[in-house]
Amino acid sequence: MLIKEVESFIEEDLGYDDVSCTIVPDKPAEAIIFTKEDCTVAGIKEAESIFCYLGIQAETTLKDGDRLKEGEIIFRVKGGAVSILRAERLALNFLGHLSGIATLTRVCVDTVRKYSVTTRVACTRKTTPGLRKFEKLAVAAGGGDTHRFNLSDSVMIKDNHVKLMGIEAAIEAAKKTSFTRKIEVEVESVEHAVLAAELGADIIMLDNMKPEAIQKTLQTLNRKGLRNSVIVEASGGISQENLESYAKTEVDVISMGSLIHKSRWIDMSLEIVK
Amino acid sequence: MLIKEVESFIEEDLGYDDVSCTIVPDKPAEAIIFTKEDCTVAGIKEAESIFCYLGIQAETTLKDGDRLKEGEIIFRVKGGAVSILRAERLALNFLGHLSGIATLTRVCVDTVRKYSVTTRVACTRKTTPGLRKFEKLAVAAGGGDTHRFNLSDSVMIKDNHVKLMGIEAAIEAAKKTSFTRKIEVEVESVEHAVLAAELGADIIMLDNMKPEAIQKTLQTLNRKGLRNSVIVEASGGISQENLESYAKTEVDVISMGSLIHKSRWIDMSLEIVK
Amino acid sequence: MLIKEVESFIEEDLGYDDVSCTIVPDKPAEAIIFTKEDCTVAGIKEAESIFCYLGIQAETTLKDGDRLKEGEIIFRVKGGAVSILRAERLALNFLGHLSGIATLTRVCVDTVRKYSVTTRVACTRKTTPGLRKFEKLAVAAGGGDTHRFNLSDSVMIKDNHVKLMGIEAAIEAAKKTSFTRKIEVEVESVEHAVLAAELGADIIMLDNMKPEAIQKTLQTLNRKGLRNSVIVEASGGISQENLESYAKTEVDVISMGSLIHKSRWIDMSLEIVK
Amino acid sequence: MLIKEVESFIEEDLGYDDVSCTIVPDKPAEAIIFTKEDCTVAGIKEAESIFCYLGIQAETTLKDGDRLKEGEIIFRVKGGAVSILRAERLALNFLGHLSGIATLTRVCVDTVRKYSVTTRVACTRKTTPGLRKFEKLAVAAGGGDTHRFNLSDSVMIKDNHVKLMGIEAAIEAAKKTSFTRKIEVEVESVEHAVLAAELGADIIMLDNMKPEAIQKTLQTLNRKGLRNSVIVEASGGISQENLESYAKTEVDVISMGSLIHKSRWIDMSLEIVK
Amino acid sequence: MLIKEVESFIEEDLGYDDVSCTIVPDKPAEAIIFTKEDCTVAGIKEAESIFCYLGIQAETTLKDGDRLKEGEIIFRVKGGAVSILRAERLALNFLGHLSGIATLTRVCVDTVRKYSVTTRVACTRKTTPGLRKFEKLAVAAGGGDTHRFNLSDSVMIKDNHVKLMGIEAAIEAAKKTSFTRKIEVEVESVEHAVLAAELGADIIMLDNMKPEAIQKTLQTLNRKGLRNSVIVEASGGISQENLESYAKTEVDVISMGSLIHKSRWIDMSLEIVK
Amino acid sequence: MLIKEVESFIEEDLGYDDVSCTIVPDKPAEAIIFTKEDCTVAGIKEAESIFCYLGIQAETTLKDGDRLKEGEIIFRVKGGAVSILRAERLALNFLGHLSGIATLTRVCVDTVRKYSVTTRVACTRKTTPGLRKFEKLAVAAGGGDTHRFNLSDSVMIKDNHVKLMGIEAAIEAAKKTSFTRKIEVEVESVEHAVLAAELGADIIMLDNMKPEAIQKTLQTLNRKGLRNSVIVEASGGISQENLESYAKTEVDVISMGSLIHKSRWIDMSLEIVK
Repeated sequence: MLIKEVESFIEEDLGYDDVSCTIVPDKPAEAIIFTKEDCTVAGIKEAESIFCYLGIQAETTLKDGDRLKEGEIIFRVKGGAVSILRAERLALNFLGHLSGIATLTRVCVDTVRKYSVTTRVACTRKTTPGLRKFEKLAVAAGGGDTHRFNLSDSVMIKDNHVKLMGIEAAIEAAKKTSFTRKIEVEVESVEHAVLAAELGADIIMLDNMKPEAIQKTLQTLNRKGLRNSVIVEASGGISQENLESYAKTEVDVISMGSLIHKSRWIDMSLEIVK
Repeated sequence: MLIKEVESFIEEDLGYDDVSCTIVPDKPAEAIIFTKEDCTVAGIKEAESIFCYLGIQAETTLKDGDRLKEGEIIFRVKGGAVSILRAERLALNFLGHLSGIATLTRVCVDTVRKYSVTTRVACTRKTTPGLRKFEKLAVAAGGGDTHRFNLSDSVMIKDNHVKLMGIEAAIEAAKKTSFTRKIEVEVESVEHAVLAAELGADIIMLDNMKPEAIQKTLQTLNRKGLRNSVIVEASGGISQENLESYAKTEVDVISMGSLIHKSRWIDMSLEIVK
Repeated sequence: MLIKEVESFIEEDLGYDDVSCTIVPDKPAEAIIFTKEDCTVAGIKEAESIFCYLGIQAETTLKDGDRLKEGEIIFRVKGGAVSILRAERLALNFLGHLSGIATLTRVCVDTVRKYSVTTRVACTRKTTPGLRKFEKLAVAAGGGDTHRFNLSDSVMIKDNHVKLMGIEAAIEAAKKTSFTRKIEVEVESVEHAVLAAELGADIIMLDNMKPEAIQKTLQTLNRKGLRNSVIVEASGGISQENLESYAKTEVDVISMGSLIHKSRWIDMSLEIVK
Repeated sequence: MLIKEVESFIEEDLGYDDVSCTIVPDKPAEAIIFTKEDCTVAGIKEAESIFCYLGIQAETTLKDGDRLKEGEIIFRVKGGAVSILRAERLALNFLGHLSGIATLTRVCVDTVRKYSVTTRVACTRKTTPGLRKFEKLAVAAGGGDTHRFNLSDSVMIKDNHVKLMGIEAAIEAAKKTSFTRKIEVEVESVEHAVLAAELGADIIMLDNMKPEAIQKTLQTLNRKGLRNSVIVEASGGISQENLESYAKTEVDVISMGSLIHKSRWIDMSLEIVK
Repeated sequence: MLIKEVESFIEEDLGYDDVSCTIVPDKPAEAIIFTKEDCTVAGIKEAESIFCYLGIQAETTLKDGDRLKEGEIIFRVKGGAVSILRAERLALNFLGHLSGIATLTRVCVDTVRKYSVTTRVACTRKTTPGLRKFEKLAVAAGGGDTHRFNLSDSVMIKDNHVKLMGIEAAIEAAKKTSFTRKIEVEVESVEHAVLAAELGADIIMLDNMKPEAIQKTLQTLNRKGLRNSVIVEASGGISQENLESYAKTEVDVISMGSLIHKSRWIDMSLEIVK
Repeated sequence: MLIKEVESFIEEDLGYDDVSCTIVPDKPAEAIIFTKEDCTVAGIKEAESIFCYLGIQAETTLKDGDRLKEGEIIFRVKGGAVSILRAERLALNFLGHLSGIATLTRVCVDTVRKYSVTTRVACTRKTTPGLRKFEKLAVAAGGGDTHRFNLSDSVMIKDNHVKLMGIEAAIEAAKKTSFTRKIEVEVESVEHAVLAAELGADIIMLDNMKPEAIQKTLQTLNRKGLRNSVIVEASGGISQENLESYAKTEVDVISMGSLIHKSRWIDMSLEIVK
């Protein structure tokens, strides 16, 4: 995390004059951070940045993506009591929120792996404002794919684009933007999927298609010799509950906004031990 | 939202060179934003800030806290097609995330109201880093209480404080900080609750106490004539599922980190209509 | 001080291309900072942040609030000559300005102590733009109370509020904002003081009342059994000169904007000694 | 004022969730800002920036430097009641602080004018951290000279420089920095003043010299034909009290840190009138 | 341009107290900006942002990429004389620098077009620190390709990568990063080019290969049926002087750091006309 | 470089999620940075700031302004392989760009020295937006003069000023701004040069005058006894090609925007050696 990011998060949680931590005598103290439930951990580096900024020594053998059992210790920290109390909530907020995302992603990836060895599980741009890079890396920690980060790093042609200019013109315009960006096209029918593939799209996103329709689209692309030249992504309304049926299609990518917007925090705690 | 906040959120979503929206011809367009599920809406002002910054006219008759039915329109917007596409995801991310919090809060407040007319439902400092003020206002939109915002605006004496210095010394120190801040003490027993009240705490937080223990504490405080001089807050492990039993105690405040960390986004959408 | 704050202060004083300090050969040097008049010191941590950022070792045994005699040394510093010259003015500006506030506060608190052991001397929101947190902490260093920091951390109902909505409605609205914030009401008569107390205000500010009127208000509140449930603050036109008469009322708080806006800097100096 | 400056000052005074102004019904309101004492006003543009950012119409016929009588109205403002209450303290803090500096400067300049038509009264780099440009412009509003703003915009050779490298080497080094910057040398004796002038200094600052010594130095420079090629500045320990004796020397510049560090705020007020 | 960017550029050029423009009477004025040499213009939007921020009306019928003849007017501006003088240098610096890049790019693209209708001319990450997005868009204005913007938006495997981990492992690792990013591999031999193509690289960059070697590589890829599945880029030591021989190879992309680091500014001027 | 500057440059080059450097195993590595052509180096401190921020040890015996031969090593660096790859482009962009400016300046200064021992070669405010202070220091590294940095640090009266208010009024107004700033006047004729000198200008800039006209102006000033009281600067259309004829006039300063806007980058490279 950049120093300016750490400072901005610390400002948010400390305010103008921290009177909660400073009433404590600032003697040396030690604490542990542990998880109160099984999880896939994420946020290790973010927590380390916070500890480091506040002059706290933090030890861990873990890295983002490790699977933890209830009760496992994530960090042992040493430092002034005031500093440890100051770091507590902010470090836990990162760890709890990001581990929640990593854990849900891990579950979804594991589910998919039962039916397909290659299908990627990806998140979307439905991320909490201001936290995108952290949340996307938490998805990666859970074994997922980060998908594109912003409107600049690849071209996504969506329903609203098609409504405004048509699919051919949109792909044509997209190709002009640069040779280093992939072009993804959102389609709602087999016909459009084939069209997009023929026009040279790199990725075809099947929007809100049911597993059977996905299957059929893959078969059609295959029949027309287009299957290997495009990456096919299923998207829209896919959640932990209905994931298996999509996984069985062995589509290349299953993207789920819900990895982030339906995740819940993992319960973690900091305890002063000395 | 401050202009610098809008710009920082826009930078995150647009990146260095938006090639997704700009391929579209920048002709005048109109769109609606609507909800795909029943909800209590929040994020209206945040969305307006985004539209305004991008030069889009946005009309709405709603305000944060209004209850919406599936399909209801939140905004009608007019502007250049490119600008509308640019605003889409960011505005929806604010509306979806914050309405999720407001909706969960509304449900919890309504549940509590069945048993107690005065009990407040409050959130905690377990908020997504960088978004605290927005998330707390979403809790308020749902009828909840924002609780303290940071370590400066009231003094909270927690278990780790007590471990480090004892309850008496902690309250003593807290009183010195200033006459404008309330002092809250986290306790785990009736005895400590009584002690904190006698020492002049403004708020007593009963940490992880079951409803019966809360009931008993309230009775004891009452018996000792301390009930009216303190606000009593129940906290720890309270969720939508077990909320009723806590509401029945008619404790002054029920605080729930889960209003934020277990909320899920409301599904909303932007559709180009012209 | 946050690193971004240090950098912004350094940018202000150094400019684009420091040609004043850099003409000196950058050899190791030592210097002292001392006070040229008796004072209560403040700004120690701010000066340390500046020295630290510029790679200067700074030693001191003092802490904010210590009383110094003319000639006493505050810091002994070691580092490159260029860096020491760069730190000089900025460190002195913080020390001189903040010690001025602490010193004036100390004098006022000492004056009050002759007549009342419990009355707090507090500052207001009349602070130099951009420096509020530093100036409020200087008041604390002088033994004063920081009062509220901003419009969010407690609710102050002032004359303009009352003019716009009436005292009852204002207190009613204030109570809804949150249970963690105190409510302060500014009144100009005994009647309003009693009314505010009865309506549940936490703090009553007697605006521009003379000592006799304050005395009378305290007696009336006492008679009505309201004295212990509110904190009473005297404010408006109180300065070092007329402070004694207010102290004699033993009101709970005397607030004085003049602690900051009439303070003058303490004269301090940095001298190269080797 | 830059928008980022306005936002940072507003953040300081509003905090995370303004609950003081927002309890008021946000109906259209009108207010006046007036001075409660005679003064030379400054801070007009800063106040306008604040009003403008908050969507308040502000009318004034005044400009920085105008002399006001007690009771005179500075601004008539119109806007939402909430916005006016929000702008109140911040606008007054700028006006009160900066007018204090302008007023003291005006008094000093007027004093000097009785004895010398050309002597400039200048401030120094002893300014409140973060506010230098505003404070220096307030000095200008009072008829004073802003002197240098930072370590980059002219070269000042001070006692510590001389101690570290000698006066000749320092002037030599200063000349190399650039042809667009003036070189100022601080001296403590007639001999050094002559030496600095001979070496080509643009400005000679007589540090802590009494009026007689200043007189003598001017005469010596005159005798040696150096008087017209240098600007002579008197500095050190000059205050409103002893200013006349310095003015009588008709030295080119009298610089006084006290214009800023001994100024006190002018008492101003905002009153809702409708 | 974001408001914060405009403000930061204005701060750089105005400094703390603009005394150059403000000495002029601030009456309404009009001015033109025109080019003193033939060019391809860029920086129109950047200049507009500056004019807009300073309250100046600016009219133009041009857009980035238009070809101009010596003497052609780019902007007609109206506003206060002080504001126009303030905008002058900053607007010209953007226009002159960016038009320099656009013009050189245009020349190179035109040269290439004589021999190849499809070959793209691209810039690299050799851009002036802080100005990358503006400079890349100037390349686009000149008809060039922006190539990747940073280390995140596609994966480039360079000589140092290969030295550290080998080409196979590098491509393997790159594929794992995400399905939305293209993978580019820098190679120095035909063999490595074929290997990279077989391993699934999207783009192959022929580093420092002479035109004949490029030709040979393209033929080999063709023979092996790999030509259509990869984009081939020539890079290294290509300048305006030797560009033709590379263009004749009809390679897909010719990338030239020199578009930016050897460009020189176009001479433009602002003239007050009323 | 300030930390906030380093972070902003790093953000520009790394983006949200560096996938190019991170695919490499992060083992200890060593590298050299060397120049591929003869040059005068600049940017040493900027590169050091980048290495330092990324935790890389960087050794060099060079300082800005040293003359290097093709192949000479500038830095030996040690650190994690990932960090070194991350620092590579950014460090090289600073070194290459700034050394380009220093090298061109050095050549021009050397050319001038053949004919005049005192004439300074100066740059102007035609600098790349955002990089002025770095570019001006590169000019200094090449032996040139930085001239003024912004509109605040000295007063420059240009043709547009004269057009708006006349030369006398402009100088009059300039003198009022402050006694610490020099006043420079741009003139286009001998008559105006003499007038400006008589009115007390510190610097006279001969705009677009040919060498003969410059010569004549210097002689006229000399004849009138004004030569020693002003600094005379030649400016406008002076480049490396026609520099000699201007140098022969022995004018005090020759200013050349082309030092920056016609400089080209020096080719430098980073090579992993272990």
